[in-house]
Amino acid sequence: MYINSTSDNSVDEGSAVRTTVAVFSAQKYVLDFLHEPIIKNFPGSTFFEARLDVNTAPLAAGHQVVCCFSKDNLSREVVDKLASAGVKFVAMRCAVFHNVDLRACQEAGIAVARVPNYSPSSVAEHAVAMLLCLNRNLHLANIRMHTGDYTLSGLVGYEMRSKTIGVIGTGAVGTVACRIFRGFGCKVLAYDICESDAVKALGVEYVVKEQLLRSADIITLHCPSLPSTRHIINKSSIAIMKTGAIIVNVSRGSLVETDAAIQAIESGQLGGLALDVYEHEGALFSRNWTALSPTERFKSWDREFQRLKSHPNILITPSLSFLTEEALTNIAAETVNNIREFSAGRSLTHQVQSD
Amino acid sequence: MYINSTSDNSVDEGSAVRTTVAVFSAQKYVLDFLHEPIIKNFPGSTFFEARLDVNTAPLAAGHQVVCCFSKDNLSREVVDKLASAGVKFVAMRCAVFHNVDLRACQEAGIAVARVPNYSPSSVAEHAVAMLLCLNRNLHLANIRMHTGDYTLSGLVGYEMRSKTIGVIGTGAVGTVACRIFRGFGCKVLAYDICESDAVKALGVEYVVKEQLLRSADIITLHCPSLPSTRHIINKSSIAIMKTGAIIVNVSRGSLVETDAAIQAIESGQLGGLALDVYEHEGALFSRNWTALSPTERFKSWDREFQRLKSHPNILITPSLSFLTEEALTNIAAETVNNIREFSAGRSLTHQVQSD
Amino acid sequence: MYINSTSDNSVDEGSAVRTTVAVFSAQKYVLDFLHEPIIKNFPGSTFFEARLDVNTAPLAAGHQVVCCFSKDNLSREVVDKLASAGVKFVAMRCAVFHNVDLRACQEAGIAVARVPNYSPSSVAEHAVAMLLCLNRNLHLANIRMHTGDYTLSGLVGYEMRSKTIGVIGTGAVGTVACRIFRGFGCKVLAYDICESDAVKALGVEYVVKEQLLRSADIITLHCPSLPSTRHIINKSSIAIMKTGAIIVNVSRGSLVETDAAIQAIESGQLGGLALDVYEHEGALFSRNWTALSPTERFKSWDREFQRLKSHPNILITPSLSFLTEEALTNIAAETVNNIREFSAGRSLTHQVQSD
Amino acid sequence: MYINSTSDNSVDEGSAVRTTVAVFSAQKYVLDFLHEPIIKNFPGSTFFEARLDVNTAPLAAGHQVVCCFSKDNLSREVVDKLASAGVKFVAMRCAVFHNVDLRACQEAGIAVARVPNYSPSSVAEHAVAMLLCLNRNLHLANIRMHTGDYTLSGLVGYEMRSKTIGVIGTGAVGTVACRIFRGFGCKVLAYDICESDAVKALGVEYVVKEQLLRSADIITLHCPSLPSTRHIINKSSIAIMKTGAIIVNVSRGSLVETDAAIQAIESGQLGGLALDVYEHEGALFSRNWTALSPTERFKSWDREFQRLKSHPNILITPSLSFLTEEALTNIAAETVNNIREFSAGRSLTHQVQSD
Repeated sequence: MYINSTSDNSVDEGSAVRTTVAVFSAQKYVLDFLHEPIIKNFPGSTFFEARLDVNTAPLAAGHQVVCCFSKDNLSREVVDKLASAGVKFVAMRCAVFHNVDLRACQEAGIAVARVPNYSPSSVAEHAVAMLLCLNRNLHLANIRMHTGDYTLSGLVGYEMRSKTIGVIGTGAVGTVACRIFRGFGCKVLAYDICESDAVKALGVEYVVKEQLLRSADIITLHCPSLPSTRHIINKSSIAIMKTGAIIVNVSRGSLVETDAAIQAIESGQLGGLALDVYEHEGALFSRNWTALSPTERFKSWDREFQRLKSHPNILITPSLSFLTEEALTNIAAETVNNIREFSAGRSLTHQVQSD
Repeated sequence: MYINSTSDNSVDEGSAVRTTVAVFSAQKYVLDFLHEPIIKNFPGSTFFEARLDVNTAPLAAGHQVVCCFSKDNLSREVVDKLASAGVKFVAMRCAVFHNVDLRACQEAGIAVARVPNYSPSSVAEHAVAMLLCLNRNLHLANIRMHTGDYTLSGLVGYEMRSKTIGVIGTGAVGTVACRIFRGFGCKVLAYDICESDAVKALGVEYVVKEQLLRSADIITLHCPSLPSTRHIINKSSIAIMKTGAIIVNVSRGSLVETDAAIQAIESGQLGGLALDVYEHEGALFSRNWTALSPTERFKSWDREFQRLKSHPNILITPSLSFLTEEALTNIAAETVNNIREFSAGRSLTHQVQSD
Repeated sequence: MYINSTSDNSVDEGSAVRTTVAVFSAQKYVLDFLHEPIIKNFPGSTFFEARLDVNTAPLAAGHQVVCCFSKDNLSREVVDKLASAGVKFVAMRCAVFHNVDLRACQEAGIAVARVPNYSPSSVAEHAVAMLLCLNRNLHLANIRMHTGDYTLSGLVGYEMRSKTIGVIGTGAVGTVACRIFRGFGCKVLAYDICESDAVKALGVEYVVKEQLLRSADIITLHCPSLPSTRHIINKSSIAIMKTGAIIVNVSRGSLVETDAAIQAIESGQLGGLALDVYEHEGALFSRNWTALSPTERFKSWDREFQRLKSHPNILITPSLSFLTEEALTNIAAETVNNIREFSAGRSLTHQVQSD
Repeated sequence: MYINSTSDNSVDEGSAVRTTVAVFSAQKYVLDFLHEPIIKNFPGSTFFEARLDVNTAPLAAGHQVVCCFSKDNLSREVVDKLASAGVKFVAMRCAVFHNVDLRACQEAGIAVARVPNYSPSSVAEHAVAMLLCLNRNLHLANIRMHTGDYTLSGLVGYEMRSKTIGVIGTGAVGTVACRIFRGFGCKVLAYDICESDAVKALGVEYVVKEQLLRSADIITLHCPSLPSTRHIINKSSIAIMKTGAIIVNVSRGSLVETDAAIQAIESGQLGGLALDVYEHEGALFSRNWTALSPTERFKSWDREFQRLKSHPNILITPSLSFLTEEALTNIAAETVNNIREFSAGRSLTHQVQSD
């Protein structure tokens, strides 16, 4: 078994009621934002760099709370081990909880809470950042710069000002995106099952989905992962888009049918793809694969993902949209609040439960 | 002598008055936008990939017009060779003309015109694109992605929404920048010797330069190169900035005292630099140095530029701010207009003359 | 039409018998080695950066000789245009001539010569260089270095000393390879239809092909492209190799069945591939695709090649094995000799003719 | 405090005499080779990813043995903490021990042993691999390949066959290097205070240092770090070398005066540098700096190292010369032997002691 832990060195006072937290997947950026608030509020807590799974679950022994991320594994088998170790509460430090077996938690008497909102601006701004970087070919220019090639051919972009943007999903994130694009002078079309007056007040026009797909130069997705949104970008929706349209997805990997998108990139029907999420990211993201030998690496080799990465007009980031100082600070504060509510026996504001 | 030419194959009709153009520095991106309009309007014109200099000037023989870019050399010696070759008009396809010896042109009876405006949005949007890319570390994330490292530590950025932006220079480009930053929800401070009502109407506050320097999280430069703006960012102006401030310069290399900026990056006083221009870019930009042997390359080695390139929080592009379809199309149209005016013997709308 | 030319400026003396050469595909490295000897021996010659094809063939007008490379197109259509332009001799500056329609040349009265040998050591040493780089993961370490990751995991190689090398083809290049590997202390097995005493004297053992395939840790190919050698590395030959074997191919792309090799890399049956040639390299190599827009680029997109490039244990170079000062100097000298023989009306030592 | 540990799960049998080992700096490649032999021989041992220093020393509590690497810190302060924790033996898993305060160990009653030899071939072959990669520009070609630039200019190398190699130091590693270079057909000159008959038998000629420096095209260093070898490559020794000479150093960083080497690269006096060691590598190597924010990173910023990295004809690897399966296996076996000798109370074959 291989673990990595950051433990608190303070002397244990032996209090029977003291709450301590086992924090998993505690990579450096997590420590930077979570270590101080957790240790200050829950002395005796421990940080493990390791991902929570069936092998690392026993490390939680002695802690009533585990704090987890979307890449941790909280399947029934893991939940049962946590319960055996005495865990009573799972504090998810993210909005999603698809990786948690809620029924298993309920049966084991483990409560679960999450951080539903941390920063719509962080996510919307990441979408815009990826789009601009891709459009102006900064990712390609940066590598040329470092090799010593300072020529310009192959790096031509276009102006945002005169473009039509299609925003699919006008919740908190989509609304921020609309406001930013209006600042660029773009025409913005929106599609959502609920229309927002605040969005309309920005000068955004709601249209039916098909009209948005047909009219937009750039389409950005800001909707949740639902049966109704799965593969909302697919072969037939791409077929009616403008030739050379760019798609931005910082929301959920399931929204885009990857194979259809790659084919459209290769045919020229799509002009670019900016992705902070990937349909099959679960087995890939949050790991440093370069430390493995090629043989080990190929056990999880994802040919489709390699194909995505190989296109100069596809820009991919590994789920960075929440990675701002503001969002991480909010997440830390909300996580501490959630654990305090549990510790004090209060009702849980952000509890998630099985249906 | 080494030349690269794109010549028109159409039969010469032998007209005595026909104007033809020798286009220099005609890299692929230039051909993509300029070849068709030039050949259509001025059949018999020739495109040379080579930069105009004392060796390539004789290639202009037989053309009354040369069309040049900011990286071509139009020193007195070159101008005299152009005159000997029969050239009567220099059509600069850019706004700047620091590379043209205007007095030599005047003495040789060669008129000069330029394209003063092509697209403020292209430039302002490039500034924003570089800033967002740098802040969210997309340039670093992109390389990690390709190596196979999908971890997040070291890639944390911040939200634009709550930041204060300082815009130095509120001409056409600065005004667009102000509008975009307001769309992000930023507080925007501006400094210019002329205050613009349109800028104020965006909710931007004009302040004195020192206050801007002290208050801004991000400072973006949109002013011309003048004795009064040279090294407007220097050791003492950096010293009063907020710790961790980011500077964006897509305007002129002379605005930033490079050595002071590097030292401030290394000390942590500056948090980032986004540069589309460089103080000593003249000898470097627009060339592909990778085709040279190291020995040849070191003849123009620029230690300061290598130092700039070596910092992960300095993002550099080689004068790409004008590199959009819209700007290139505008430049081509304006260049054709300028040549037509010359050809028709009309007064030159965008003539530049020595003082 | 787009051409790039390097022309000689010397005054034409009008001699009826003077031989001049039109050199195609004259990239910088070609100029560095060929310009001086060609211009000295055949004043009035011209260098074109452009590849010879049906569009550029007319540029040869006024020259009796064209000097070409393996990437130039000398199909019947092109040969006929060369003949119309007055060309009488094709001087190939390489060993291969698969790109020349010899029958068309014969019918058009154009003689063809080549440079059959230039440097076996250059090629054999390139094979060893690629192998060592791949085995010790220097290509991966170099990128890590530049990003700032100085860790070691994932970069473990093995010692050559105790390994068994299989050399397929023991002509001039294979013999040099045998000698080098013996210097490393390797056991060397060889396979060829002709056994060489010189090779045996190095302590190399000739074996049947199957035994070589079964026993070697590393297999390096040094045989010509023939019907009998096509796909000499294929699904079934890979199947009997040692798990983790490395294949090196600096000879001909047709020797390796690419799809089978990729599958074996992904399954772990092969441990690495070092390729200086690629089965379908014709449409790809010798070009700088980064200067094209993605849309243009995708017209020649080669999905298989992208897949090859995406594997960390596949190292590819674009036909560099001949790229040494010695080989380029030899090629230049031999090319000049071939042209002199033609010019003097002597019999051609290195003529190639259709069967 | 931040630690990463790999602990053995086997039940402790409570034996009073059982030896357990605390292994520091146990990155993945260490685990791959050391975990099984250590756990099998010394059940109850623990692996810490963390580097040994004053903060992590207490982790050794409960173990009589610490197993360390050249990057661990065994200063007096750390040694005293180890002694307090009950440590009796330091098993260095490398040849060097400059990082161990031997006097402090002696005073604290802690014995120290090392692994003096593990694989001369691994090191010599790494030197040759780096040299070939650098000479044939494979490091540059690899990046071009990935960007999509398949042109050849700028990648010309030379043949090894006809070159003169200067080998400084003909111990075990230098002898292997001599044999390999002879296999390439090189002329080999050697310099050492002790001449070896085995080396002479390879056809190598011993010469005085100055003659070697003057005559060699390539100089490779295989000598220990001693006052007499410090800066053996310095401004004056470089001055007498052939213009364009290449230097290879896989031995000790102190052998090369870095600043003189960089200046000679920039002037063209040196043609290339291949370095697996660096004068000030202590604070840099073995860490992944990309996980830090730029601000944190700049605390250890090494301007000279950045300058080294910025040159296309300098190839650097972070002490990989020992990183082969064979060497790592040997190191593991020798380390286990050393600990067994300590555990059995036998005399220590590879003990190191203060003078």
